[in-house]
Amino acid sequence: MRIALDAMGTDHAPRSEVAGAVEALSELGLGPDVEVVLVGDREILEAELALYDVVPPGLSIHHAPDRVTASDSPASVIRRKPKSSIVVGLRLHQSGEADAFVSAGSTGAVMATSLFILRPLPGVDRPAIGTILPTSGKPCLLLDSGANVDCKPHHLIQFAHLGNIFAQDMMGRENPRIGLLNIGEEPGKGDELSVEAHRLLSAESSLNFVGNVEGRDIIKDSCDVVVCDGFVGNVLLKFYESVATFIIGLLQNQVTASGTELDLDNVFRVLDYAETGGAPLLGVGGVSVICHGGSTPKAIRNALKVAAKAVRSEMVQHSARELAVPTEES
Amino acid sequence: MRIALDAMGTDHAPRSEVAGAVEALSELGLGPDVEVVLVGDREILEAELALYDVVPPGLSIHHAPDRVTASDSPASVIRRKPKSSIVVGLRLHQSGEADAFVSAGSTGAVMATSLFILRPLPGVDRPAIGTILPTSGKPCLLLDSGANVDCKPHHLIQFAHLGNIFAQDMMGRENPRIGLLNIGEEPGKGDELSVEAHRLLSAESSLNFVGNVEGRDIIKDSCDVVVCDGFVGNVLLKFYESVATFIIGLLQNQVTASGTELDLDNVFRVLDYAETGGAPLLGVGGVSVICHGGSTPKAIRNALKVAAKAVRSEMVQHSARELAVPTEES
Repeated sequence: MRIALDAMGTDHAPRSEVAGAVEALSELGLGPDVEVVLVGDREILEAELALYDVVPPGLSIHHAPDRVTASDSPASVIRRKPKSSIVVGLRLHQSGEADAFVSAGSTGAVMATSLFILRPLPGVDRPAIGTILPTSGKPCLLLDSGANVDCKPHHLIQFAHLGNIFAQDMMGRENPRIGLLNIGEEPGKGDELSVEAHRLLSAESSLNFVGNVEGRDIIKDSCDVVVCDGFVGNVLLKFYESVATFIIGLLQNQVTASGTELDLDNVFRVLDYAETGGAPLLGVGGVSVICHGGSTPKAIRNALKVAAKAVRSEMVQHSARELAVPTEES
Repeated sequence: MRIALDAMGTDHAPRSEVAGAVEALSELGLGPDVEVVLVGDREILEAELALYDVVPPGLSIHHAPDRVTASDSPASVIRRKPKSSIVVGLRLHQSGEADAFVSAGSTGAVMATSLFILRPLPGVDRPAIGTILPTSGKPCLLLDSGANVDCKPHHLIQFAHLGNIFAQDMMGRENPRIGLLNIGEEPGKGDELSVEAHRLLSAESSLNFVGNVEGRDIIKDSCDVVVCDGFVGNVLLKFYESVATFIIGLLQNQVTASGTELDLDNVFRVLDYAETGGAPLLGVGGVSVICHGGSTPKAIRNALKVAAKAVRSEMVQHSARELAVPTEES
């Protein structure tokens, strides 16, 4: 298996990418059959690799002279930056030279280019970003967490199916509990989108739909997958990250002021997004994992693991089967 | 000034209500001119008051034999429970016998009945619930936090004006910073509602509109008022309450495991909703403060303070002036 890693995506590219790839390959966490292709400017990448005493054998460079910046409009990247690490990396995946793609570049650009090159699966109108949230029990998949706004009810049903497969193949959940994010428990609650999505989800016999889930229920491990429009999902995700940091900061001040020694590492670990790695774009004809721009080497390493697991579990093929539009014979 | 307090609203009614009212009047935190009218079953309330050695002189009972329960449909309360503490209390306010109303009963019922009896102010299509959120700096007003879903852009503009006045009169902010909750900073970002609301807010010369605010910005004291549809506002509010509890729980386990003594009271205080009291329904022709069903005596006491402050600052009259639909002469 070969994973194409955009080496020019993080805020400190290519340092975090190269370090993450070296770590992942050195510790064999990806499995012995995995190679990583660093996609980016060859000269820069060779200089970075020269800093390492030992470069693992599975690591190679694929030259891409250009890079996407924050000022590039996401939709224009495919046309205006054809030699960027994002476009070149995704083309490697499309052509079969790589089995997956990982990038910490502009989320919008990675998403738009993935959609263009990998195409949505048949039966998927709008691929979605799935993000794993820590809860008081097992982590929970939130989708869509920002790829789509102004969703229609049938989009949420597609998200539910994509999440259902991800939870099985990637999170090891049997018969995943699917919840609909809403502002009340009863079926008639919520906005027009939620009321209709609830009706449609209730009729999906292949899903273990557990009904509406309120904002307060997510953290309580009330379901394996939470489905919502990308607007509310994105607001929630960003809020979660910031509020966790805020509350931990409050407590650290308290700990410091009290003069006690307290190891907060365990707490941080639970809330550390780097543990879970990147967020996969679900519903496209390939594996495209999107990471934070501020990703550390550890986050990159974990995103590579996510990509390897997605390839190994054949999640995309599974999704294609489950979401395929029925033909007349079927 | 006289405040009508629904004495039958909390999960432990009338215990929390009576205790909260006695505390508020005893410590004179409401000001010496304030009286509180307990609205509920006279016999039950007299029995509860008999438990106190001293009942402050400003406390009285107004008999309301019936009470609203969770099984009552909010919209039907006005018609089917005319002798309930909610309807009777709001009628006291409407007739001028009370200057404000406070209730910890069913949020839906208090809202629907307040709308029916107090009526929306001219120029307000949809009154909104404003909730005060703790941040790393000054607290921030979130509205709408659950009264309205499927909002149109002009509703969000009305929320912005209502929040602007609340922030001035109730939170002491000069020239309050108004933010629009969105999923990106740039004006063109977001769903259809946000894009158009951003355009309209930018044109409101009487508002200090600071632009889009992302989920991660709220906690950073980036604005005084955050405007959003009630669906996302409600999800966010409930999520905030639960995640704060969750993270503090994680840390408490850690503190216990480490065997250190650590006083977490200061941290709890920052996150304690009881400190801020109830959430006022903004945009109706009166003061109606809505509390959690689980309100403690302290939360009731603080909600009474919120009500007293709203009356004293003439927030409703201020809102009526600012939101009045311009006549042809003006």
